[in-house]
Amino acid sequence: MTRFAFSIHATDGKARTGTIQMRRGEIRTPAFMPVGTAATVKAMKPEAVRATGADIILGNTYHLMLRPGAERVARLGGLHKFMNWSRPILTDSGGYQVMSLSDLRKITEEGVTFASHIDGSRHNLTPERSMEIQRLLGSDIVMAFDECPRADQDRDVIARSMEMSMRWAKRSRDAFDSGGEHAEDAALFGIQQGALDQGLRQNSADALRDIGFDGYAIGGLAVGEGQEAMFATLDFAPGQLPADRPRYLMGVGKPDDLIGAVERGVDMFDCVLPSRSGRNGQAFTWTGPLNLRNAKHAEDTGPLDPRCICPTCATYSRAYLHHLIKAGEILGAVLMTEHNLSFYQQLMQAMRDAIGAGRFAQFAADFRRDYLGR
Amino acid sequence: MTRFAFSIHATDGKARTGTIQMRRGEIRTPAFMPVGTAATVKAMKPEAVRATGADIILGNTYHLMLRPGAERVARLGGLHKFMNWSRPILTDSGGYQVMSLSDLRKITEEGVTFASHIDGSRHNLTPERSMEIQRLLGSDIVMAFDECPRADQDRDVIARSMEMSMRWAKRSRDAFDSGGEHAEDAALFGIQQGALDQGLRQNSADALRDIGFDGYAIGGLAVGEGQEAMFATLDFAPGQLPADRPRYLMGVGKPDDLIGAVERGVDMFDCVLPSRSGRNGQAFTWTGPLNLRNAKHAEDTGPLDPRCICPTCATYSRAYLHHLIKAGEILGAVLMTEHNLSFYQQLMQAMRDAIGAGRFAQFAADFRRDYLGR
Repeated sequence: MTRFAFSIHATDGKARTGTIQMRRGEIRTPAFMPVGTAATVKAMKPEAVRATGADIILGNTYHLMLRPGAERVARLGGLHKFMNWSRPILTDSGGYQVMSLSDLRKITEEGVTFASHIDGSRHNLTPERSMEIQRLLGSDIVMAFDECPRADQDRDVIARSMEMSMRWAKRSRDAFDSGGEHAEDAALFGIQQGALDQGLRQNSADALRDIGFDGYAIGGLAVGEGQEAMFATLDFAPGQLPADRPRYLMGVGKPDDLIGAVERGVDMFDCVLPSRSGRNGQAFTWTGPLNLRNAKHAEDTGPLDPRCICPTCATYSRAYLHHLIKAGEILGAVLMTEHNLSFYQQLMQAMRDAIGAGRFAQFAADFRRDYLGR
Repeated sequence: MTRFAFSIHATDGKARTGTIQMRRGEIRTPAFMPVGTAATVKAMKPEAVRATGADIILGNTYHLMLRPGAERVARLGGLHKFMNWSRPILTDSGGYQVMSLSDLRKITEEGVTFASHIDGSRHNLTPERSMEIQRLLGSDIVMAFDECPRADQDRDVIARSMEMSMRWAKRSRDAFDSGGEHAEDAALFGIQQGALDQGLRQNSADALRDIGFDGYAIGGLAVGEGQEAMFATLDFAPGQLPADRPRYLMGVGKPDDLIGAVERGVDMFDCVLPSRSGRNGQAFTWTGPLNLRNAKHAEDTGPLDPRCICPTCATYSRAYLHHLIKAGEILGAVLMTEHNLSFYQQLMQAMRDAIGAGRFAQFAADFRRDYLGR
C-alpha cells in the first residue's frame, strides 16, 4: 500500500499538476480541500461533498479536541467513520485556531494553554499533544504544530516565533514517528513561517528540509496582509521548498488568489470562503461573485452560472435562491454551499487541464478578464 | 385528465385507506403532508422529500403572499416550478396564520386586515383574495378561507365565527369557480369549524355539504385543547362529513395523534412537528421520541431507530447526530429532518398496510405499547 507518493504529471511555468497517492484515495493537484471544521463540511452531506469533485477534506484539530473530543472520536472509530467520509482527511495542528479563536492563551516553549471558546474550559496544546490528537482522529495528512504570528509585527518577533515553530516542527516529527501504525499510514507536513520576509522564510524552509516531511505548507499568509503582499511572498516562498513535494498554502483563498498561487507553484489549498460565503448568500461564478441578497435577482429565472455543472445550477433559479437567502432558509445555505464548492472544484479542474495542456498563462489571463474584469 | 378522484380501497372500523388521483400525481391515504411553509420543506431538497415517500406537500398562503409574493411566484411560473416540486401541493388559506402570526389584525365580515410579521407592511385577506393567491401559486388543493377561533371561548363566539366561516366558504367556492383554467385542474376543500361542540360541528358540516367541496377539512383542533378533547371531537366530527370525500385534519400532529385520528376516520394530515422537532434535536422512533441533545447519546454508535429505513439511520450514529445538534451544525438539522419525515411516512405506510389487511386495531395497540409504553 502506498503511504504517500506525489507524482508531478506536467509543469507550465512554475505551475504543476499531479497526483498524491494515499491509502484512502488519490488527490489530484492543484487541489482545493473543503473545510470540515467540526466533523462536517457545513450544510453538506459527505456524498455531496464528494460529488463536487473533492478528493480530500480538512478537519480542525482545535474544534474537534474541544467537541466532541479526540479520545471520544477515537472510541467511536475515528473521524472518517464518525462523519462518513472514506477518502483522505488533512487535519490542521490547532495552532492557528488557538491564536484566533480561544481566550486566555499563554504561549511558552512547551506549548500553548488556552480557554475553550465554547465553555471556557482550560486546555493545553503542545507539538506532542497535537500529534496525539491528529492520530486519535485518524488523520491522513497531519500538520506539524506551529505558531502563526501576526504578519505586521517586528522582524525580531517574527524571527523568534518562526524559530520556535521550527523547534516545534522537530518535536512534531519525533512525536508523529512514535505513533506506531498510524505513522505508517499517514503523512506529516511541515509548515514554513517567516511572514513576508524572504530571509526568514529561507531559514524556515532550510530547517524543515533538514527535519524532512512528506509535504510542506506555507503558513502565516492570508492573515490580513492583502493579495499583493501575499503574491510578493509567493514569488519566492514555494521555490524555497523541495520541488518534489506538495506545497500547501494554508487558508487561501478567493478564486483569483488560487490562480495566482498556482501560477507561483502552489499545489494545495484550503479555505472556508466558498462554504461560509455560500451560507451568507454570496455565489462564485466565472464572471465574478454575486450577492444573492441583491433585489436585482428577485425575478431572475437564470442559474447562478450558465457554465456551472452543479446540481444547484441545473435546477434552481437565482430568484429562488434569492428568496431562500432572504428568508433565512437552511436550503439556501445547502444549495449555495453546494454550488460554491462545486465551482471551486471546477476551477481546480480547469487549472489542472490548463497546466496539462501547457496553456496556463492564457487560462489565467482569460479568467482574470472574465472574473475580475481586467 | 382526472381533476380529483378519491377511491377508498379498504376500511377497517372507521379507518379507511385509499388514493386521491390528481393531474400531478397520486396521493395515498391516510396521507401525511410535510409542511413547505416558505416554498421549501425546511432543510430538505425536494427530491429528498419525495424519497421519504411524501406524495404531496403543503405550502402556506400567508408566508408566500408576504415573501416572495403570490404575483411574483406566478410570474416565475408558479410554486411547483419555483421550488422544483412536480407533485401535488396543498395550500392553506392563510386564515390560521393571520390569526397566529400577524399583528394588528382586524376581522370583519369582508375579511381580515393585518400587518406582516416580517416588515410590518399592511395586507388584506378575504375569501376572494385567498382564492386568487392560491390560484397564482398554482395550488393543486386549495383550502377555503376561514376564521380559526380559540377553542376556549364562549359557545356564542364560536358559533358566530363558524357561521361567518361558512359564509366565507361560499364566497371561496364562488371565487374558486370563477378561476378559469385553474378551477378545472385544482380541487377545493371546505373547512369544518365549531371547536369542540357537536351541534356546531354538525351545522358547519351541513353548510359545507350544501355548498359542495372535493374534500373536507376538520379545522379548529390542535390549537391547545389537548389530545383527549381532540379525540372526543374526532369521535363525531369525521362522521358528520361526507364519507366519499377525503377528510383532512389540519395541523396534526404527534404519531399517536395520527393513529388515533385515522382510527376515527381521518384521511389526511399536515404538521410542522417532524421537521421542527428534527431541527431542534428530537427524533421520532417506533419506541418513542428521543432527545438527541441528551448526553447519553454521546457515544452511542447505534442508529436513531434500528427499524427505520431512512438514509440517516442507514449511515449515521446517534453519537454523530448528538455532536451535530450540540454544535448547531446545519447537517444535524438536515439529517434529523430527513429521518423524522421518513419516519412519519413509514408510519403512514404501516397504517395503510394495516387497514388494508384488516388489522388496524392490533397495529394501533402494538404501536401504543411500543411508542407510549402503555
